[in-house]
Amino acid sequence: MKYINELHENENIKEIYLVRQRTSAVTKNGKSYDNVNLQDKTGNIDAKIWDPNSAGIDEFEALDYVEITGMVKEFNSALQISITRARKVKEGEYDPADYLPVSRFDRDTMFSELLSYIDDIKNPYLKKLCEAFFMDDPDFADRFKKSSAAKSVHHGFIGGLLEHTLSVTRLCEYYTKAYPDLKKDLLISVAILHDIGKVRELSEFPMNDYTDDGQLLGHIVMGSEMIYEKIKGIDGFPERLASEVRHCILAHHGEYEFGSPKKPALMEAMALNFADNTDAKMETFAEQLKASTSSGWLGFNRLLDSNIRKTGEV
Amino acid sequence: MKYINELHENENIKEIYLVRQRTSAVTKNGKSYDNVNLQDKTGNIDAKIWDPNSAGIDEFEALDYVEITGMVKEFNSALQISITRARKVKEGEYDPADYLPVSRFDRDTMFSELLSYIDDIKNPYLKKLCEAFFMDDPDFADRFKKSSAAKSVHHGFIGGLLEHTLSVTRLCEYYTKAYPDLKKDLLISVAILHDIGKVRELSEFPMNDYTDDGQLLGHIVMGSEMIYEKIKGIDGFPERLASEVRHCILAHHGEYEFGSPKKPALMEAMALNFADNTDAKMETFAEQLKASTSSGWLGFNRLLDSNIRKTGEV
Amino acid sequence: MKYINELHENENIKEIYLVRQRTSAVTKNGKSYDNVNLQDKTGNIDAKIWDPNSAGIDEFEALDYVEITGMVKEFNSALQISITRARKVKEGEYDPADYLPVSRFDRDTMFSELLSYIDDIKNPYLKKLCEAFFMDDPDFADRFKKSSAAKSVHHGFIGGLLEHTLSVTRLCEYYTKAYPDLKKDLLISVAILHDIGKVRELSEFPMNDYTDDGQLLGHIVMGSEMIYEKIKGIDGFPERLASEVRHCILAHHGEYEFGSPKKPALMEAMALNFADNTDAKMETFAEQLKASTSSGWLGFNRLLDSNIRKTGEV
Amino acid sequence: MKYINELHENENIKEIYLVRQRTSAVTKNGKSYDNVNLQDKTGNIDAKIWDPNSAGIDEFEALDYVEITGMVKEFNSALQISITRARKVKEGEYDPADYLPVSRFDRDTMFSELLSYIDDIKNPYLKKLCEAFFMDDPDFADRFKKSSAAKSVHHGFIGGLLEHTLSVTRLCEYYTKAYPDLKKDLLISVAILHDIGKVRELSEFPMNDYTDDGQLLGHIVMGSEMIYEKIKGIDGFPERLASEVRHCILAHHGEYEFGSPKKPALMEAMALNFADNTDAKMETFAEQLKASTSSGWLGFNRLLDSNIRKTGEV
Amino acid sequence: MKYINELHENENIKEIYLVRQRTSAVTKNGKSYDNVNLQDKTGNIDAKIWDPNSAGIDEFEALDYVEITGMVKEFNSALQISITRARKVKEGEYDPADYLPVSRFDRDTMFSELLSYIDDIKNPYLKKLCEAFFMDDPDFADRFKKSSAAKSVHHGFIGGLLEHTLSVTRLCEYYTKAYPDLKKDLLISVAILHDIGKVRELSEFPMNDYTDDGQLLGHIVMGSEMIYEKIKGIDGFPERLASEVRHCILAHHGEYEFGSPKKPALMEAMALNFADNTDAKMETFAEQLKASTSSGWLGFNRLLDSNIRKTGEV
Amino acid sequence: MKYINELHENENIKEIYLVRQRTSAVTKNGKSYDNVNLQDKTGNIDAKIWDPNSAGIDEFEALDYVEITGMVKEFNSALQISITRARKVKEGEYDPADYLPVSRFDRDTMFSELLSYIDDIKNPYLKKLCEAFFMDDPDFADRFKKSSAAKSVHHGFIGGLLEHTLSVTRLCEYYTKAYPDLKKDLLISVAILHDIGKVRELSEFPMNDYTDDGQLLGHIVMGSEMIYEKIKGIDGFPERLASEVRHCILAHHGEYEFGSPKKPALMEAMALNFADNTDAKMETFAEQLKASTSSGWLGFNRLLDSNIRKTGEV
Repeated sequence: MKYINELHENENIKEIYLVRQRTSAVTKNGKSYDNVNLQDKTGNIDAKIWDPNSAGIDEFEALDYVEITGMVKEFNSALQISITRARKVKEGEYDPADYLPVSRFDRDTMFSELLSYIDDIKNPYLKKLCEAFFMDDPDFADRFKKSSAAKSVHHGFIGGLLEHTLSVTRLCEYYTKAYPDLKKDLLISVAILHDIGKVRELSEFPMNDYTDDGQLLGHIVMGSEMIYEKIKGIDGFPERLASEVRHCILAHHGEYEFGSPKKPALMEAMALNFADNTDAKMETFAEQLKASTSSGWLGFNRLLDSNIRKTGEV
Repeated sequence: MKYINELHENENIKEIYLVRQRTSAVTKNGKSYDNVNLQDKTGNIDAKIWDPNSAGIDEFEALDYVEITGMVKEFNSALQISITRARKVKEGEYDPADYLPVSRFDRDTMFSELLSYIDDIKNPYLKKLCEAFFMDDPDFADRFKKSSAAKSVHHGFIGGLLEHTLSVTRLCEYYTKAYPDLKKDLLISVAILHDIGKVRELSEFPMNDYTDDGQLLGHIVMGSEMIYEKIKGIDGFPERLASEVRHCILAHHGEYEFGSPKKPALMEAMALNFADNTDAKMETFAEQLKASTSSGWLGFNRLLDSNIRKTGEV
Repeated sequence: MKYINELHENENIKEIYLVRQRTSAVTKNGKSYDNVNLQDKTGNIDAKIWDPNSAGIDEFEALDYVEITGMVKEFNSALQISITRARKVKEGEYDPADYLPVSRFDRDTMFSELLSYIDDIKNPYLKKLCEAFFMDDPDFADRFKKSSAAKSVHHGFIGGLLEHTLSVTRLCEYYTKAYPDLKKDLLISVAILHDIGKVRELSEFPMNDYTDDGQLLGHIVMGSEMIYEKIKGIDGFPERLASEVRHCILAHHGEYEFGSPKKPALMEAMALNFADNTDAKMETFAEQLKASTSSGWLGFNRLLDSNIRKTGEV
Repeated sequence: MKYINELHENENIKEIYLVRQRTSAVTKNGKSYDNVNLQDKTGNIDAKIWDPNSAGIDEFEALDYVEITGMVKEFNSALQISITRARKVKEGEYDPADYLPVSRFDRDTMFSELLSYIDDIKNPYLKKLCEAFFMDDPDFADRFKKSSAAKSVHHGFIGGLLEHTLSVTRLCEYYTKAYPDLKKDLLISVAILHDIGKVRELSEFPMNDYTDDGQLLGHIVMGSEMIYEKIKGIDGFPERLASEVRHCILAHHGEYEFGSPKKPALMEAMALNFADNTDAKMETFAEQLKASTSSGWLGFNRLLDSNIRKTGEV
Repeated sequence: MKYINELHENENIKEIYLVRQRTSAVTKNGKSYDNVNLQDKTGNIDAKIWDPNSAGIDEFEALDYVEITGMVKEFNSALQISITRARKVKEGEYDPADYLPVSRFDRDTMFSELLSYIDDIKNPYLKKLCEAFFMDDPDFADRFKKSSAAKSVHHGFIGGLLEHTLSVTRLCEYYTKAYPDLKKDLLISVAILHDIGKVRELSEFPMNDYTDDGQLLGHIVMGSEMIYEKIKGIDGFPERLASEVRHCILAHHGEYEFGSPKKPALMEAMALNFADNTDAKMETFAEQLKASTSSGWLGFNRLLDSNIRKTGEV
Repeated sequence: MKYINELHENENIKEIYLVRQRTSAVTKNGKSYDNVNLQDKTGNIDAKIWDPNSAGIDEFEALDYVEITGMVKEFNSALQISITRARKVKEGEYDPADYLPVSRFDRDTMFSELLSYIDDIKNPYLKKLCEAFFMDDPDFADRFKKSSAAKSVHHGFIGGLLEHTLSVTRLCEYYTKAYPDLKKDLLISVAILHDIGKVRELSEFPMNDYTDDGQLLGHIVMGSEMIYEKIKGIDGFPERLASEVRHCILAHHGEYEFGSPKKPALMEAMALNFADNTDAKMETFAEQLKASTSSGWLGFNRLLDSNIRKTGEV
């Protein structure tokens, strides 16, 4: 298969891509044509169907897999495919993993590990709270397993939210051993729950873009709200504990300027902030190293706020 | 009546004050005594009962009005009353307005005006949402009318929250005339609702101090949550509108560093931020001018972030 | 009429535009040609006359209205007109409103309202000061009515300065009712005068660009200076009042980083800062909404420092 | 002579001090007494005359030199003199230099040097501008020679403004040799004029405190205004040059947050900012070193924003 | 034993304390006396010997343990001991642990664990570098084991540097498992070495205060220098590796404003910064919780930049 | 000679340029070609040799001077030379000054002046320290004379480091006269030494780019290290003085955010920071003025953080 990031100007292609978008338009001369956006796991590209009613153009729409015949051109210094034929293909003709970025770890295995952390929680209220999401709410669990942890930046792939959540939870467990003043059940619970608002902040793949609620409300507040709703359904959940859980969620970005309406006031809130920040930055760094083929300096990285460099062999 | 801010060292007094707190303690020599904190509308003062079991000391507790006989002393460079007699007084012997700071406007009149704003809302969902708090929830309404808008700073008196909310609402109504692109129903509704979380952020008078939830969660997030709960009880409330209302609440402090998890993205959210900020600062300035007897410079004010000065007569 | 923002590559045109600039140049081969810049209310475009001495090219200069015949080309990824004929047209052949952006309100009506505010000032010195500009100095008044309030950003059109000044004055009048500690005469006067330095900061239309003095000195200091000069011509103007007026002008941007050499120390200075800031931001937001055809998110706005979005219908 | 900073509790004194302030007051018991503030070059101290009408108390007022007999007491953890006798003394009984801080350099010599810099200016307009202040305006010149450059911080003594101005001018002359792109006449002129607004920003000694205009308008804007007034009296002063001079004055603090409404745009403005800043900081450091008797670390200095330390002998 | 933080005014004492400082002075009346500073693990206190030559006053000096007889007084609102007898005591009369704060972990056990990390390093150069300090330089090792990690703040006790270093090393080891792109040998080495400059930045106990070099150069640069010196003694140490090691040391504070002259450019440098920061903040939080007896809010903590609170029982 | 910044698209050239880089590559069709980068003092340009083995292509490599025959084309909106012939030329056929930017002052004269400053140092240790670099270490001296002071920004030419160092030293000498509290020998020494780390931070011309050590460690720390090494070779160099010298080097950028790990604590450190900053900014401004042909505004300059403008004739 020829990936989108390998296409060149003036190349004739016949490849299967995933359709992100298809809309109709009219040229100045009154002729109809279609704007199409195609995707695989390496990126996406615009395309045009200048003859939408010709015989070779199947009916298809967003999220269909379609075999595209056409030529790659340059327009406004970007590549674009001029489509001459488009055949909607059947399952089995393609491998979905070629079209959507996906975690390198098995999602079911990761999910099982997350459930085992829930299983170990002793405090009955915290345990019920976690179960309410991950065991008793299959829609949520399904959505959680498919979500990314970000639009781009880091963990921006299917299963990314699960992978990041698990990594943060493991690090928090390590903290509870190193700093025994931490309340383990509370910290593990908020680690598991800290980013659940992201299932509402980002739309599902292949879009994986900010939703309106994501921009208007944000995953921090939505996550706290989702938790508050579940807590109300749990008989006898202690009020103080409910406030502490939500505080940890609200404060997990650590600083006002990163969108937390409260700064960490509890030791567990501070620990969660460190775990979240450490995992986000280490994964970002690792993804940058993997993405780059050059040795030595990789240039300035905005998220890490530093020029970064590959370490030599040790 | 001799107010607390008029007391001097070595003065004998016999005055009625409101009790904020009374706790028992033991001296190093094993003798019991009581720590008392007394309040009137000008401030509060610590007091000691060295002989708690003597005949002249009535049974009394926090929030009682008590006639105090004793002497004012200095201890650790603060004044303190040494209580020799304490008589619990009856309603009618004192004027509550002498003991708790209170808005200079009539609270019922202000509340009626607020209700008339609600009455004018055309959008049925927004109207129902406001009514759900101010008309259908008498506990909330009662609490709202008694709350201050702040611990100190500005509007720090009974009825202060109502006074501030009304002032912001009026200013927002003015905006809707000056800037017709604003959606009036939305802006008036969020003006009325913007600080309702403060009834949970601050404890009731005479304490009027931050609650645990106030510090852990804050009135911005709690207010948004309270609104979300009421919205769920309103059939057919449009989802987009629900998000816009909550966005305005979340963004009403305007900047991350002032505790808003989102910056204003809607014109109404920006207008609400201006109205809230204008009223808070103008009232702060006016309270400072009233509190000061000197003419000319009043010194640096932290909230206004400037040296401030009384304007001369014009 | 075909507006400049509608032109396309390789299009032949014959349209009347306003000339912003015309200069002569010589190619490397020693041939003379002319650089021309053309404008209408939608923008401006560069043009070339390769044959400046040919019969079809009239004599014309900056600020003339000229009918251009030629072809639109692309050069360095911007459009450019190659002019073959240029005919200077007469008044009546075109509508000036097509060429310069102009307030949607009638300038004479707005000016009358401003004068009526001056008429209401009771303090004789402040009244004389305002009259000295708006009634006794017709050159100033004329210039003021034609100025914009900004190069771009907000109120960037003919009459914009008048419209913004009036809007700020009205809002200040509202403040004097809501916050009776404000000295009305002082606040209304400084509202009227706050931006008069802009007639020197920005050059006249169609240029409407920063002058050298605008960049070297700025409208804040120049405005204060202009006021000081007029004050010296008013017998008995109280010194303290003169300082308070100028302080309000100097402090009206509210923060050092926005170019105010002093922070607001007087309640009227703070009120003026709020009124100016509120009107600037609300108008900016409204202009953005009008300029955009898309619904929903409009992207990040640098001046408002936020992603902004159209509110849905309420 | 016993200086004010050497006084101790319970000490009987008979010393001549300069009177800064004398006001009458009444005790709670209705008895009159006088509040007095006394000064010498080491500081100032409050004093009380409990028997203002007794025989030993001369008539005297602010700025008189008075021989004080009395006892030093402690009140509210500050020292205070209880005055029993007060004799107004004659010139000759005291040395003024003991009472007011004064430059260690001869003021007439410094002033002559400043005049010689003016004498060297070639540009006739700039020369006339400087002469207009320092030669043709004897009131200004007299006030300038007596002023300090600051309330405290650095050069906070009589002649301090002259000393600082001369030091900045010399450094600017050095710059014109090192960086020949600098226009010498312009830079020397603005160096001489840069702080003239301070004669209005600070009141005369012995007060040497911010004036109302100093706080409302500041020396930067007032200095620019004073220059503009003189420029208008000079026939044919080029407009562009007038703007450049005022720009240098307005920008000489270099940053908005230090009260400059414009950042340096001209090479001379930048040079002036460096000269002013260098001299202010070097003099501050030197004054700190002189004031401290300890060797080694002197602690954190707010103006220098650093812990500072005496360098060892080299 | 009565600890220093338990002393009260007007109390007669007879207790053994550690002497931090003893200096001689002369009163105004020419009488000699001694200034003494005494310490135990709860704090320190000033004391005076008004009769230094009296029989009951033994010869003693800084770092001696002395039995003090005297009375506690208040002077300038601080407590002070007036010493009447001072007897130098012998080892065995006191428990050193009462006088100097010390790690709650066994220092030899911690040091062994640190050595075992060194033992596991595979890269021969990095191993030799660590050994050069911790195995081949007994003076360094001895000093390292006794040092604190800070003057106060966190780990401010004997063995604190060792405890912090070990904790950071363990956390880094965890990171190498969670983020396999990290070069383990490099990260473990720089974790072990990251704060060695502190043995020069802080003086030995009981002083434990910043040295001159600590203030002039800082532990970050001194640590890098110490490493560079040892590297030069190791044959064939690869240059690139030497630069990477020193970069990690220089960048381990993560931000310029925390004294790092470089921001982390290598993944190991970033990991080290996270480990150091996490351990410092978690330990600070834990120490605050231990120091406070109240439940609930502990007030604002400058280092953690937040109001902090004890979590309730979970 | 036709300079690189004068080349145009579609131009045939035959010019001598300096080769910065030559590397071999293979097209998709398997054909070999060479990537070349050519430089003169006005800039550099990419070039291709599509027929590397053709007769007209001499053997040549980086740092050779080569006569290029070919055509200028545009590729990806940048110019590029397609080389048809390449003849390696001999010394004498070209003038090196056309190919590398160089100080306008004679380097030997400047170096002599620097040595005369060293000669005047009285303190034997400081003198020996400076001599150790500039007299006893010819490799260093040679490298120093050829280095630039920066990659671009200011003094970015051969001899730039020497020119800047001399200028800073002269300014520091001026300071020692104006501020006699400064220790002259110390200040002159650290002025001479302050930027020596730059010989390791930047690679030699024609590259003049950041080295790996430059990015990982920086010239501030490397300079301090280089000094420390030399100090260890000087018998009896006082420890305190050694720390003061290094402190001045470490603090010479004045602020943490500019890469100084310490803020200036000594008067000499502060003076050095002022001298370095003044010279860097004045030279930057002067270079900008020289580079621009337009009069008036030159636009925003990032380093000077201001819009800058040519001053008119005075």
